[in-house]
Amino acid sequence: MRRTPCPERPPLPSVERMTTSLTVHQVRRPQGMPTAADFALVEETLPRLAEGQALVENAYLSVDPYMREAMADNELHAALEGRAVGRVVASRTPSLAVGDVVFHRHGLRSHALVRYDEVRVLAVPDRVPLSAYLGIMGGTGLSAYVGLKRTADLRAGETLFVSAAAGGVGTAAGRLARLLGARRVIGSTGSAVKARHLTEHLGFDAAFDYHDGVLAGLRAAAPDGIDVYLDNVGGEHLEAAIEVLRERGRIAWCGAIAQYNDPQNPPPAPRNLYAVVGKQLRLEGFLVRQNLDLRDELEALVVPEIQAGRLVSDETIFAGVERTVEAFLAVLRGENVGKMLVRA
Amino acid sequence: MRRTPCPERPPLPSVERMTTSLTVHQVRRPQGMPTAADFALVEETLPRLAEGQALVENAYLSVDPYMREAMADNELHAALEGRAVGRVVASRTPSLAVGDVVFHRHGLRSHALVRYDEVRVLAVPDRVPLSAYLGIMGGTGLSAYVGLKRTADLRAGETLFVSAAAGGVGTAAGRLARLLGARRVIGSTGSAVKARHLTEHLGFDAAFDYHDGVLAGLRAAAPDGIDVYLDNVGGEHLEAAIEVLRERGRIAWCGAIAQYNDPQNPPPAPRNLYAVVGKQLRLEGFLVRQNLDLRDELEALVVPEIQAGRLVSDETIFAGVERTVEAFLAVLRGENVGKMLVRA
Repeated sequence: MRRTPCPERPPLPSVERMTTSLTVHQVRRPQGMPTAADFALVEETLPRLAEGQALVENAYLSVDPYMREAMADNELHAALEGRAVGRVVASRTPSLAVGDVVFHRHGLRSHALVRYDEVRVLAVPDRVPLSAYLGIMGGTGLSAYVGLKRTADLRAGETLFVSAAAGGVGTAAGRLARLLGARRVIGSTGSAVKARHLTEHLGFDAAFDYHDGVLAGLRAAAPDGIDVYLDNVGGEHLEAAIEVLRERGRIAWCGAIAQYNDPQNPPPAPRNLYAVVGKQLRLEGFLVRQNLDLRDELEALVVPEIQAGRLVSDETIFAGVERTVEAFLAVLRGENVGKMLVRA
Repeated sequence: MRRTPCPERPPLPSVERMTTSLTVHQVRRPQGMPTAADFALVEETLPRLAEGQALVENAYLSVDPYMREAMADNELHAALEGRAVGRVVASRTPSLAVGDVVFHRHGLRSHALVRYDEVRVLAVPDRVPLSAYLGIMGGTGLSAYVGLKRTADLRAGETLFVSAAAGGVGTAAGRLARLLGARRVIGSTGSAVKARHLTEHLGFDAAFDYHDGVLAGLRAAAPDGIDVYLDNVGGEHLEAAIEVLRERGRIAWCGAIAQYNDPQNPPPAPRNLYAVVGKQLRLEGFLVRQNLDLRDELEALVVPEIQAGRLVSDETIFAGVERTVEAFLAVLRGENVGKMLVRA
């Protein structure tokens, strides 16, 4: 789905007025799947703006699977970090003007106090929705791009397989693979409904519900094998991909969602790992934060496509900061299609 | 150890004389570790030279762990394939002259009938032993070179870990890594005696007996971690290497000796495979036969070093074709140091 940029909001708070921020705290450590009771929504009163600071009213908050891992270490009863885009509504730094659109990491809240060196000012082109800066042009889209372009070196005419295909990284990978010239894009997901959605609305050539068997589903979808596997999952998916990869196939591994809730018990490693030798496969991990230099290249690729209406940043958007926890739990259950966002 | 080129042999057989070839046959399929009874030494009478053929008297035969895998498929009661170097002693092709030194794959025998397009004529430079064309300049050395240079991209100043370090590929890797500028070269091997030999005579900076624990041995030898792992083994070694690899470390995987005797029961995959993501590791398999284009580069690197006496092709040489099976079983038990050869 496509969203319009953050709507204009009436009365800007003056520098002198006290501002409250609706903020998400973590209040205990979850065992296994988190629940709403692990969080609290707190109305914080922000201190007055100090010299060098600006007040940002957030427009969109990013809600991501990786946040589950952080819950083991997050400070309890304190504001959670998270990525957001918003507008400067008050400023005591010459580097940021009221009205500037910024990206920052003080995210899971309605308002944030930021220093100029903690934000990136966005020059949002016409007809590009602000939410795309957390979606296909954000860390999510960049993860897919780094994995496909740099790590896996996906080339025109090749066949791509993506796990967790209906999620943020997965949907972006499907879209970007097409821009990179992939001949065939295959996705696995957690339900038949989502699989159908992938092929009918999200540009995938084939998709299957992994509950029906990963290897069987992949073999049926890729009778001629695959060239690249973008792995969001590990475990059985990785094993099936190794089985079906062609000679000199590449695996770009960017996370293992299956493991976030139980890091002490990783899924078993693929029993067929030795096939890496005989088929001369490459398995490579990557962290998007170590590849931020590709961001400009991604934007240059994506912006004209969005403007021309040929590319969509697939997003599921929950309205209201108070729904942030609900959105996060939905991500962990795989209920989103595309990037999960909260509109603040 | 260093060997001189193949000694001159007296009376060359004329084209008209019948020639016999002492030849190794496989006579049954081994279960697990092969024994001498799985082979027979047969004196074959070679047919007369046909038009287009040459008769080669072999000088050295290559005996390799990979031959164990082939034993599942080899034709029984027939001559085994294998790499060899030798001299043309009779010829009915203008492409090969008596006295030419050639490399070919009709190996495990004293004499072979070859067609000109089945051999590679070697221009052996002064002071380069013929055996080196099966050792550090043969498939063995090329395996090490491809793994280090192309697959793992070993760079000056880095630390290398090699498993099966006292074997053919392992010793070559130790030597070649030094030429490529490695700062520190660490090897694992199957006995304390071989470990000592690696550091005292084969140029390794550190070595350990893996029976004392792979991870403990590697940690002690590489307190600052490793950059590259050349894997000949898989299993526990691979897991330990993943544990100790630094950020952006590379694994070049060229075989799994541990698995050759029991391909149905591969060693367990590394339980810590997911660290590939967090440390951005790269695990890549390669087959030397798909990388023969690097042979000239390897020879250009190695020949001047051998001629200058700075580089040795480490070899264990058994004398006599009749000892070929003994040599092969010794390789499988890891009793060789350096490349295992038979002098025919």
